[in-house]
Amino acid sequence: MPTPRSLRRTNPITFVLGAILLFGFYIFFFSSPSDDLPSTSTNGQQKKTASNALSPPSLPFRKPKSNNNNNPPPEVVHYYMSNLTTSRDPIANQETVLILTPLARFYQEYWDNLLSLNYPRSLISLGFIIPKTKEGSQAYALLQAQITKTQSLPKGKRFASVTILRQDTESPLQTQNEAERHKISNQKVRRAAMAKARNSLLFTTMGPTTSWVLWLDADIIETPPTLIQDLASHDKPIIAANCFQRFHNPETNSPDSRVYDLNNWVDSPTAKELGAKMGKDDILLEGYGEMPTYRSLMVWMKEDGGDPGKEVELDGVGGTALLVKAEVHRDGAMFPAFAFYHLIETEGFAKMARRLGWKSWGLPNYLVYHYNE
Amino acid sequence: MPTPRSLRRTNPITFVLGAILLFGFYIFFFSSPSDDLPSTSTNGQQKKTASNALSPPSLPFRKPKSNNNNNPPPEVVHYYMSNLTTSRDPIANQETVLILTPLARFYQEYWDNLLSLNYPRSLISLGFIIPKTKEGSQAYALLQAQITKTQSLPKGKRFASVTILRQDTESPLQTQNEAERHKISNQKVRRAAMAKARNSLLFTTMGPTTSWVLWLDADIIETPPTLIQDLASHDKPIIAANCFQRFHNPETNSPDSRVYDLNNWVDSPTAKELGAKMGKDDILLEGYGEMPTYRSLMVWMKEDGGDPGKEVELDGVGGTALLVKAEVHRDGAMFPAFAFYHLIETEGFAKMARRLGWKSWGLPNYLVYHYNE
Repeated sequence: MPTPRSLRRTNPITFVLGAILLFGFYIFFFSSPSDDLPSTSTNGQQKKTASNALSPPSLPFRKPKSNNNNNPPPEVVHYYMSNLTTSRDPIANQETVLILTPLARFYQEYWDNLLSLNYPRSLISLGFIIPKTKEGSQAYALLQAQITKTQSLPKGKRFASVTILRQDTESPLQTQNEAERHKISNQKVRRAAMAKARNSLLFTTMGPTTSWVLWLDADIIETPPTLIQDLASHDKPIIAANCFQRFHNPETNSPDSRVYDLNNWVDSPTAKELGAKMGKDDILLEGYGEMPTYRSLMVWMKEDGGDPGKEVELDGVGGTALLVKAEVHRDGAMFPAFAFYHLIETEGFAKMARRLGWKSWGLPNYLVYHYNE
Repeated sequence: MPTPRSLRRTNPITFVLGAILLFGFYIFFFSSPSDDLPSTSTNGQQKKTASNALSPPSLPFRKPKSNNNNNPPPEVVHYYMSNLTTSRDPIANQETVLILTPLARFYQEYWDNLLSLNYPRSLISLGFIIPKTKEGSQAYALLQAQITKTQSLPKGKRFASVTILRQDTESPLQTQNEAERHKISNQKVRRAAMAKARNSLLFTTMGPTTSWVLWLDADIIETPPTLIQDLASHDKPIIAANCFQRFHNPETNSPDSRVYDLNNWVDSPTAKELGAKMGKDDILLEGYGEMPTYRSLMVWMKEDGGDPGKEVELDGVGGTALLVKAEVHRDGAMFPAFAFYHLIETEGFAKMARRLGWKSWGLPNYLVYHYNE
């Protein structure tokens, strides 16, 4: 029996309803003051604009240095956002990507993999949300050290901006043991909290010029360096990589891999029937023997030597490595923290996006790997 | 029979599914470059930070002028966002307000009323979304002229920032006559489009330090100057003013007022029964004789000489003048563009917020007035 992502996740971001968020917020900018008004070449009509308005906090317009008036009226900057595309060739079109990661534990391998991505960093903004727990503070410190290091690199090798949100709430489940945390009855609370954390992160960091949002879990430690380009090349509103986990197989005494993210699936009549009989607040969960859904899970669709470009339309998605066109979120697609068609969090997101007219897709033979706890 | 808001609205923001948004985007900043690093007094721990990170595009951190290194590493700025409050006394606590307005037609009275609000403008960011129609372009030009005028005032009298989004889509209903547009069958399409416009505006403009979001319709031309303070003083997650319309009564030959926004209501058993019998995509609408819901509408709760501070808990809300704590939106509460518990747009928002644990309230005796077309 594989260990599903929802069971395995340790120290999730959770919080008490109604509690006020505490944010710790870091911003790094790669531009020096002399870069205030670079020319934008993407549109002949544009002259002097802030060129890096990726995601909030974005680079704002500043008055030219030559203006010596002590209190001049602010100037008007036009952003011709008709140039904001989401295309099969995002680098050629200079499309900006916001990578969002709920982070409870810092893995150096996650950061190293992030740095291995060969999408231009000047087009990438990072956003993290970290729980205000002891372990969160450790993760925060480790992340901060790596950010400082990376953002001190020469300009072209820095990320456009980095935002860290900290939540001033304790998880009610933090002190429970592993078995307790994995109970179905606790999963709803845990995933609702994760959904709210994702929403907070998204609503706070997505800006007017974000083209793509890449949801990348903090325990994803190995992806192809072309992850962003590869996923974008399919030109789908929502597209998920297939998440596996490498481990040492004691039976064969050799390296092996096993399925991990069970939230990417095609719906089944059984699951729909189960949902129809449920109370309105009940949710369907994947990967529990006591609740067999007979959904077609993407993890089982992987073919040995199969075409990594093969697409499958999905009804539910996970958030381990998920590329979303920003316009899907702008239309209102968020992560339900409540039962939405008996689905919650990333799976509910796929359903909500579908209700807004956007389909979800998965790549069964395109693999990313989860940390092996 | 009163004319409900949903019937009266002309030239709504609508758009075709899957179409790409075209944004026109203006930013005005009131700070001069010398303000880059003001001290923040709200927290003893803070030293030099960007002080006006209201909403995106927010004021970013800039390196101190004294740093003459040609390519120095970017510095780290800490935003201690535990100071981000939503309190009964928002001015004393320097709470930032994001005023969001879907705008299809520009009324000078709207702008004049906006300027009459006595909440400190330096704490207010404005966000507009305007359809890319001929009438939208006229509204855009008029709005732009007023913004330029206001933002040229001395620093203390300018808004913190102004964002205008333009949608490059035509309304499929734009060419219909008034009777056609008001049909129930067309209302769902119209309100779904309005919901998506609100979501786009919200997702694009809300920043990490936004305390409150005030939804203010473009045809609201008269409110008390203390609108923001008054609504905030109730310390509710979601609170609506009661929207009426002034007109000249030919019967009495004197000025009069009549009810306008019918979307603020307390639910009824009849409406719930109607919903239970509906198809999953059907929506309940207020103000149609052929669909009597027997809900208690807030407009009918107004008492002559009644206490303007009187509160009523609501199940559905309108968006004419609605104050929302930003954390409600951050939790994920958006405007459903699909049937959500048979509700859509602002009414669906109230229901979604409720599912996230937040209650809606209204002030039956606290009036704002809609333009009389």
